[in-house]
Amino acid sequence: MSKLDEVYAKLQVKNGAKMALIVLDGLGDIATQSQGWLTPLEAARTPNLDALSCSGSAQGRMIPVAPGITPGSGPGHLALFGYDPIDWQVGRGVIETLGLGIELKNGDVAARANFCSLNKEGLVTDRRAGRIATEVCERLCTILSSNITKIGTTKVLIYPGKEHRFVIVFQGNGLEGPLTDTDPNREGLMIAEAVPTDPSNVGQANVAQLIKDFYKLALPLLAAEKTANGFLMRGVAHQPNIPTFQQRYGLKAAAIAVYPMYKGLSQLVGMIKIEGPETIAQQFERYVAEYDNYDFFFIHYKYTDKSGEDGDFAAKVKAIEDFDAALPIFLARKPDVIAITGDHSTPCALKGHSWHPQPVLLHSKASGSDKLVRFTETGANSGSLSVFEAKYLMRLMQANAGMFDKYGA
Amino acid sequence: MSKLDEVYAKLQVKNGAKMALIVLDGLGDIATQSQGWLTPLEAARTPNLDALSCSGSAQGRMIPVAPGITPGSGPGHLALFGYDPIDWQVGRGVIETLGLGIELKNGDVAARANFCSLNKEGLVTDRRAGRIATEVCERLCTILSSNITKIGTTKVLIYPGKEHRFVIVFQGNGLEGPLTDTDPNREGLMIAEAVPTDPSNVGQANVAQLIKDFYKLALPLLAAEKTANGFLMRGVAHQPNIPTFQQRYGLKAAAIAVYPMYKGLSQLVGMIKIEGPETIAQQFERYVAEYDNYDFFFIHYKYTDKSGEDGDFAAKVKAIEDFDAALPIFLARKPDVIAITGDHSTPCALKGHSWHPQPVLLHSKASGSDKLVRFTETGANSGSLSVFEAKYLMRLMQANAGMFDKYGA
Repeated sequence: MSKLDEVYAKLQVKNGAKMALIVLDGLGDIATQSQGWLTPLEAARTPNLDALSCSGSAQGRMIPVAPGITPGSGPGHLALFGYDPIDWQVGRGVIETLGLGIELKNGDVAARANFCSLNKEGLVTDRRAGRIATEVCERLCTILSSNITKIGTTKVLIYPGKEHRFVIVFQGNGLEGPLTDTDPNREGLMIAEAVPTDPSNVGQANVAQLIKDFYKLALPLLAAEKTANGFLMRGVAHQPNIPTFQQRYGLKAAAIAVYPMYKGLSQLVGMIKIEGPETIAQQFERYVAEYDNYDFFFIHYKYTDKSGEDGDFAAKVKAIEDFDAALPIFLARKPDVIAITGDHSTPCALKGHSWHPQPVLLHSKASGSDKLVRFTETGANSGSLSVFEAKYLMRLMQANAGMFDKYGA
Repeated sequence: MSKLDEVYAKLQVKNGAKMALIVLDGLGDIATQSQGWLTPLEAARTPNLDALSCSGSAQGRMIPVAPGITPGSGPGHLALFGYDPIDWQVGRGVIETLGLGIELKNGDVAARANFCSLNKEGLVTDRRAGRIATEVCERLCTILSSNITKIGTTKVLIYPGKEHRFVIVFQGNGLEGPLTDTDPNREGLMIAEAVPTDPSNVGQANVAQLIKDFYKLALPLLAAEKTANGFLMRGVAHQPNIPTFQQRYGLKAAAIAVYPMYKGLSQLVGMIKIEGPETIAQQFERYVAEYDNYDFFFIHYKYTDKSGEDGDFAAKVKAIEDFDAALPIFLARKPDVIAITGDHSTPCALKGHSWHPQPVLLHSKASGSDKLVRFTETGANSGSLSVFEAKYLMRLMQANAGMFDKYGA
C-alpha cells in the first residue's frame, strides 16, 4: 500500500452514507468540424443532466490512466474503482474470461485462445482458422473440455467465445502469470513456446509446463479437423489478489451492469452482481429497489461506447439522450453522493477508445456548484475538479460522503 | 526506467507519423496593470495562431519542472523532450559548454570557470577579475590551452566565453561529477577545493585530483597577469548518458535552432542539428525542405525570451508577431501533430525566467477543439489539456500521432 493509501485508510470512517457511480462507457469525445465543433454530449438534449448540473454539482475531467494512454475497459474501470491501473495490471486472458461471464478466483490463470490452421510441418497457415463459425468453435471446445479436465492436480476449464475465439483457465495451486504468447503473431511460423516473463518465478514456470502438457494432450484431439487443427494462446495471466471494496473502503458494493465484462470487472473488486435488468431504466429501477441493501452502487451503461466505436455520432447522441430520459428514475432516490462519468473517451472520429480525459460530474451536499448549466466536455474544462487522475474519483466520492476524518490537527 | 515509462515503452508503435515541437523560448508571461492586464501573447496580433486555434486545437498550460520551480534552459528543454528534469540533472558546466557550441560526449566532465584576481596571500580579491574584456579572456585561454593539453591520460580542453567566463572540459575514462565549486562565493577567501558530492564515488575522486593537478599547472601560467591571475570553477559535472530520441521514442529527430545552447541541448538527446537558418522564416523553410527526412522536428525561436529578459513588453509582442507572420511557411506542410509552446515563462515584469506554467497549443486530427478563438495564457487556462507537467507533452504528442497501442483489454 502506498503512503498516501495508508493515510486514506487511517482517515476512513463508516457513516452509512450511500454513493452511486454511474458509468456511461466511453462517454468522452472530441469536437470536430464535421459535427459543428460539438461533442455528442454537447449536441445531445439532456434536460435531466442539465438540471442536476444546475442544482449544485462540481465538474472536471479525468485522465483514465496517465497522459496519452488509451485504456481498455479493464484499466479504465479499475481506475474508476480507485485502484491504480499501473500497479494493478489484469491480464487480457482474465479480462476476456470475465467478458464471457465466467467467474474466476484469485490465482486462477486464464488465457485467450484462437483456433488456427497448421500445415503438415506444424507451421501456422491461418492464425484464425478462417474465422470458423461460433458453432464450430463450440463443438471443438466440447471435444477439448470433455477429454481434458485435469493436468496433474490442476483443473483445466475451456469456454468457447465468438467465431475462432475461446478461453482456457487453469485452476490450481502455485500458478502465476504473465507468460509470453504461443501466438507467433504471423503465419508461416511454428506455435511459440509460452515463456515466463520473470525467469525466477516458480508459479510462472509451473504454468509454462502446464501449457506444454496441454498442447500435448489437445493437439491430437484436433488432428482430424480440416481448418481448426491447432490453437494459439495469448495474454496468459492470473487473476491478481485485489483488495475488495469492503476491504479497501469498508463499503458493501453492488454492480448493476448488463454486459458480462463489466459484471466481471466489478467482481474483481468484490462487488455483488445484481442480475436481471436489461435497459438503463430497468437498471435504475433496480437501484431504487436495492437502495437499502448496499452502500455503493456501480451502474454501467454500454451504448455510448458502442456507438463511439462505430463512429456513429447520431447514435452516440441518441444513447446519451436515452440515458438522460431514464435518469429521473434514479434521481427519485438520490444517494448522498452521485458521480456520473465514463471509463474513458471513445471519440466517434477515432472509432475507438482514446486517452482524452473523460468529463465527470460530482453531486452531493458538499460538492458545491460550478455554476455550469450543462454537463459537457467544454464546460467540465473549467470545473472546480479540474483534470485529475481517475483513480482519485473514489477518494473524492468518499470525501463528499463525509467518510474521511481530518488529517492532522 | 519508471513503471509508467515501461508501460509507455511497451505500448509504443512505429507508424511513420510526423511531429513538430515549436518552442518560443520564454513564451509565457503574466498580466500586469501597467500593460492593461494583458500578456504579450494577448496583446499581440496573431492571425495565424488564432486560425490554428480555431481549426481544431487543444490548449493548456505546462508546469516546466514542479510548482514554483523556475527552470534554466536545460531543465526546461529536457522536460519538453519528455525527460523528467528532476531525474535527469545536467550540470551547469555541461550546459555552458553546449551553449558555446562545443560538442560533448557522454562522460565528458565540464566546468564553468571565471578568471579572478588573487592577492599575494592567494585570497580572492575580485571574483570576476574586473570583468576583463573578451579578448583578454581569449588570450589567457590560449596561454592555458597551449600549455596544458593532457593530465595523465585525460585530455584537457579550454574554451573562452564572454568577458571573464570560460569552460574547462576533461575527456577521459572513469570521470564523473558533480563536485563542489572552487568558487568560495565571496571575496577575501582562498580558492576552495573541489570535493566529490558523493565521497564513495571513484569517478568524482578522479576529477577532484584532476582539478588539483590542473590548478598546479595553470596558476603559474597566469602569475604574471595583473588582474586575471587566478580562476574559479563552478558546476563541475559530466554529460549524463541520456537515452536518445531514437532509443526512447523510436523517432528520428532534427533540431532547427539558431542559438548554440539549444543545438547543444537537442544534441544531448541525440537530435540531428540542422545548420544554416538564421531567421524563423528560414527555419520554417528548412523544416519544409527536410520534411521527408525526419519523424520529429524541434524548432526553437529565441526572441520571446530575450525581450522578456530585457523587460521589454513591446519587443516581446513584436517577437510574437514576427513569429506569427512566418508561421504560414510552416503550415504549408502540416505534420500530423503540432505542439506550440515555450520552455518556461519569461515575464517582462520579472525580467527573467519564471515558474509560471507556459501555454501550450496541440493540434492534430485527434486533438479535438477547445473552441478557443485565440492562443493565450488566459484562454489556455480553460483548455482541455488543463495544467500538466511539461514532461508529459511528448506522451500527448505520441498519443495524438497514434503511436500508442491500447493499454489492457
